[in-house]
Amino acid sequence: MQTFWDYRFAQRTQRMKSSAIRELLKFAENSDVISFAGGMPAPEVFPIKEFQEACLRVLSNNGPASLQYGSTDDYVPLREMIARHPVRYGINVTIDNILITSGSQQALDLLGKIFINRGDRILVESPTYVGAIQAWNAYGAEFVPIPMDENGMITDFLEDRLRAGVKFIYVLPNFQNPTGSTLSYERRLKLIEMADKYGVPIIEDDPYGQLRFEGENLPVIEVLDSQTRLQKDCYSGNVIYLSTFSKTLAPGIRLAWVVAPPEVINKLILAKQGADLHTSTFNQIVAYEVAHGGFLYEHVKIIRKVYKERRDVMIDTLQEHMPENVSWTHPQGGLFLWITLPDCLDAQDLFDDAVKEKVAFVPGSSFFAEGGGHNTMRLNFSNAVPEKINEGIARLSKVVKNHLVKNGHS
Amino acid sequence: MQTFWDYRFAQRTQRMKSSAIRELLKFAENSDVISFAGGMPAPEVFPIKEFQEACLRVLSNNGPASLQYGSTDDYVPLREMIARHPVRYGINVTIDNILITSGSQQALDLLGKIFINRGDRILVESPTYVGAIQAWNAYGAEFVPIPMDENGMITDFLEDRLRAGVKFIYVLPNFQNPTGSTLSYERRLKLIEMADKYGVPIIEDDPYGQLRFEGENLPVIEVLDSQTRLQKDCYSGNVIYLSTFSKTLAPGIRLAWVVAPPEVINKLILAKQGADLHTSTFNQIVAYEVAHGGFLYEHVKIIRKVYKERRDVMIDTLQEHMPENVSWTHPQGGLFLWITLPDCLDAQDLFDDAVKEKVAFVPGSSFFAEGGGHNTMRLNFSNAVPEKINEGIARLSKVVKNHLVKNGHS
Repeated sequence: MQTFWDYRFAQRTQRMKSSAIRELLKFAENSDVISFAGGMPAPEVFPIKEFQEACLRVLSNNGPASLQYGSTDDYVPLREMIARHPVRYGINVTIDNILITSGSQQALDLLGKIFINRGDRILVESPTYVGAIQAWNAYGAEFVPIPMDENGMITDFLEDRLRAGVKFIYVLPNFQNPTGSTLSYERRLKLIEMADKYGVPIIEDDPYGQLRFEGENLPVIEVLDSQTRLQKDCYSGNVIYLSTFSKTLAPGIRLAWVVAPPEVINKLILAKQGADLHTSTFNQIVAYEVAHGGFLYEHVKIIRKVYKERRDVMIDTLQEHMPENVSWTHPQGGLFLWITLPDCLDAQDLFDDAVKEKVAFVPGSSFFAEGGGHNTMRLNFSNAVPEKINEGIARLSKVVKNHLVKNGHS
Repeated sequence: MQTFWDYRFAQRTQRMKSSAIRELLKFAENSDVISFAGGMPAPEVFPIKEFQEACLRVLSNNGPASLQYGSTDDYVPLREMIARHPVRYGINVTIDNILITSGSQQALDLLGKIFINRGDRILVESPTYVGAIQAWNAYGAEFVPIPMDENGMITDFLEDRLRAGVKFIYVLPNFQNPTGSTLSYERRLKLIEMADKYGVPIIEDDPYGQLRFEGENLPVIEVLDSQTRLQKDCYSGNVIYLSTFSKTLAPGIRLAWVVAPPEVINKLILAKQGADLHTSTFNQIVAYEVAHGGFLYEHVKIIRKVYKERRDVMIDTLQEHMPENVSWTHPQGGLFLWITLPDCLDAQDLFDDAVKEKVAFVPGSSFFAEGGGHNTMRLNFSNAVPEKINEGIARLSKVVKNHLVKNGHS
């Protein structure tokens, strides 16, 4: 039966669906469930003391200005700090290339708003970040999946897909959510070459790039793209780069940023004016106070150490308990790894039994824009302490074994 | 010449314009300009000390949870506090009727997202809040203006407009931005009756309702609507109510809320998931810590006192200096008053000379969705201290007089 409101909602609301993950997390909320389902950073490393000191200092020194309205692109010292980041940018980025957003999710929404006409095709890794699908569904996007392997998007598929006409390419190059894989150097070059050949922008979503705890850093696609253009005086190229303080400082302050050509930044500012006027002045100044002067650089070292330990525990325990025909990725950073079960198993079925055994994960099918991945799951290794990871993986392995037996593999 | 990016922007970006106000504010930034152009609260009354204490307490007591991801509808104690607000709600509102948003601007954007199909007609007061026009332009709205007088929207025009088919009615009932007028009790009832008769939702935007410094409070339209329905067990009706902490606590924390039927809240939550995941956990907990237990109730008394003094100074100085054929509204609360100049003057022309004289305002035409108001201007009286108001109005009056002389009125 249609209600008063049903008749009034816009057509696009039919495409808005709750992320399956958010629904699943409700099951995982019970405190005796060991959850690998969310995407939360380790709370143990949040710099509480530094935030306390920064809040006091900002309210004393900046006074009422820290609680007043700000401008949409906003806090200049924070943008300057991002612009001069020595490790991430080999190119000459100025504050006019940077917009602060209320989390990276807002950057995805605003990019959808300025780029996507109904029916526009977007190339995405398959699987991909579910928040991007959610954001862009509201603007009527169609998703064109590119298969992945442990080296990221398989770029051999690109040209064929690009020929069919595409609005932009969306890629998470480092320790991808959900798979944990990293796009290889060769594929980065291939991606840049293809995007340039077909005149298609790349959106490079890089929330985890600084959280590499193993192996060598690979260059940012935006930087590589700029270098191949040999335009060293100013930032140029067709890459839009996103990153965030959610995984290095704390997600609860909702601070992220976009690096893009000024033309794109200007349109994003217009979209952001209508979307939320500006990002919290107070949070921007506090984050700057906490992060600047080298703190962040030292702090991510601690995060890397903690996450490496947790990944190691998870992989060791998987090796110890999981049956032979189960495999997983070996992420060199980030928060997630990806499990592939034998084809006969369905991760969605497994989920119900897992929750009964007090362990939770996200069935991989949630991350496929166009279906697939029934026998996959995403595990988060950053949030739980090592003992919990140990116990949780033991429980999960038991559930997998039971399902294999049920399916005739004894 | 079309650039690489011009070809790629979505059609809707053509409708995205920078608020004229934001552009004007750049002229007013110079510190020797006395600006009545912005919409900023008095910084002198921001509760700095209370924020400092709350930040310390929250980070100590709530610990890492205050910096972690939260859920989209989020901080339950804050929603409970809003739900039980004794003055504003005579109806039974629960936390399921409430969504916290990243400022009221986000509420406007999300309402646009869930309701507006391209070409939908929206009834707005003429003039109206420019941020609503900005937010809804991006979704392809058409605006149908309803003339106003000092008692708000002239409801006699409603039925005719409603018959032509309308998606919703947008109204700022108290101390409207930009005019400062308040919708009378009789017109509130008429508005509710008409909206009900034609089955059209009302969006009641009420950022200033608590800032009445003169006269009697008028009932919230949402409450009146609910009472006329005689459904006292739960919130119902077709009014969506918006309010904010920006004018009572501080705008820099970007916290506002929507009160609506759960059906609407659920759709807004879906839209918000895609738009920014959730509003800053930290800010929500800190705002709750500052506001709860009666602080806010006492604090708004101080704000009312300060704003009344500033309005009085502004009106006294206007009376003293302005020529006879200039008139203004007498707002009983809020942040703004509205000036009407003789028809032969153009406020846009005046602006340039005003800035030369080091005083700024917003030409009223910015607030008309469909044109008009060339001889009007919005003045903010909350932000400047009394001596500055005095001096600024003297300067402005001089500019007006000069323009009258130029136009042959000597």
